Amino acid sequence: MIREAVPSAKGLERLVEALRALPGVGPRSAQRMAYHLLQHDRSGADQLAQALAAALAQVRHCSMCNNFTEDDICTLCRSTRRDRSLLCVVETPADLAMVEQTATYAGMYFVLMGRLSPLDGVGPHDIGLERLLARATEGEVAEVVLATNFTNEGEATAHYIAEMLRARDVRVSRIARGVPLGGELEYVDAGTLSQALLDRRGL
Amino acid sequence: MIREAVPSAKGLERLVEALRALPGVGPRSAQRMAYHLLQHDRSGADQLAQALAAALAQVRHCSMCNNFTEDDICTLCRSTRRDRSLLCVVETPADLAMVEQTATYAGMYFVLMGRLSPLDGVGPHDIGLERLLARATEGEVAEVVLATNFTNEGEATAHYIAEMLRARDVRVSRIARGVPLGGELEYVDAGTLSQALLDRRGL
Repeated sequence: MIREAVPSAKGLERLVEALRALPGVGPRSAQRMAYHLLQHDRSGADQLAQALAAALAQVRHCSMCNNFTEDDICTLCRSTRRDRSLLCVVETPADLAMVEQTATYAGMYFVLMGRLSPLDGVGPHDIGLERLLARATEGEVAEVVLATNFTNEGEATAHYIAEMLRARDVRVSRIARGVPLGGELEYVDAGTLSQALLDRRGL
Repeated sequence: MIREAVPSAKGLERLVEALRALPGVGPRSAQRMAYHLLQHDRSGADQLAQALAAALAQVRHCSMCNNFTEDDICTLCRSTRRDRSLLCVVETPADLAMVEQTATYAGMYFVLMGRLSPLDGVGPHDIGLERLLARATEGEVAEVVLATNFTNEGEATAHYIAEMLRARDVRVSRIARGVPLGGELEYVDAGTLSQALLDRRGL
C-alpha cells in the first residue's frame, strides 16, 4: 500500500518525486528518505544538494580510459609507472577499483560504463566500442585483457569485443574462470566446476 | 566486500559520501546511485539537487499540527470544514495521510514526527508533547484520539500521552485493535485475535 504525500507541502512532494531518480528507490522509500532528511538530517540534505551540484559540474569521463575523473585525462592514465602495452577492459569504475585492489595488474584500462544489452537498447556505440577499438589499435597496446563480468551480458560483451579486436589482429585475452580462492568443491556450482576442469593447467 | 571509489574523482567520492545521509543507503548502494546519476541520469541528479535545496528553504512545520508545510499554518489546520473538537495524534505525516485516506475522520491533527524511544534518546520534548498538551487544553479540543502505531514504541507513546492528558482531565481515546478487514482468523496472529476477543462489541 503506497502512502501518499501530504497535500500541503509542494516542496516536499517535489523532493519525494526527485528522490525516485535514485536506482532502487520506489515511492515509499522516497517518502521515508524525504521525511528523514527534513526532520532529522537537514545538514545531510544540504551537503547532498551541494555534492550533487558539484559532481555534475566537475565529474566527467577521462578521454583515455573513459573512467570518471575531474581532469581531461585521469591520474591513472597520466601515470608514468603503468605498463602501456596492456589494456584491461572493465564494465564499471567499481570493477576497475577491484582490479586495482588486487595489486597484480599494472597496465592501463578502458571502462565501458555498461555492457552490451540489446533488450535494454544498449549497443556497441553506447559502451564506447569505437573508442576502445581506436585505443587498442593505436600502436601502444600489445594485449587487451577482457575483465567484464561472468554474467550472460558480460560474457556476450567480451565475445563481441574479442571478435571486433581479432578482426584487427589485436591480441585478446579473458581473465580466468574457476573455483574461487578458499572455495570448496562441494559448495561450488556445477558450471564453475566444469569450467575449472576444462581450463585445468599443467603443473 | 565493499568496493572503493576510484581515487581520481574527488567530487564523485564526496557525492558517494553525501548519499549515505539517506536512510538505508550503505557505501555500496551509495556508489551505485552516484554512478547511475552521473552516467545515466544527470537531469535527474540536477532536479534532485534543486528539490533538496528548495525543500530545505521552504518546508517547515505547521505551528498548529506540526506537520510539514510551506506556510505558517497548513491548509488542513486553516480549513473551516474540519471538526475542531477532535484532535488525532499520529506519529508521522504518512500516518496522517493514511487517516485522511479513510475519509472517516474530519477532525484536527497533531503530528509527533516520531515516537518515544528512550534507547534512541527520543524523549517527550523531542516529539513536542508540551505543544500537544497546550493544544489539547486550550479549550477547543473535546477529545484526543491516539492513532500511534501498535508497535511497542507506538503503544508506549500512546500510554504516556494518555497519562499526561488524563492528569489534565482531557478525554482520550485510542483507535481500535482487532482483526483487519478481510482478515481470516486462521492467518491472524494470536495477539491480534486475543485483543479482538477482549474488545468484542455487543451487536
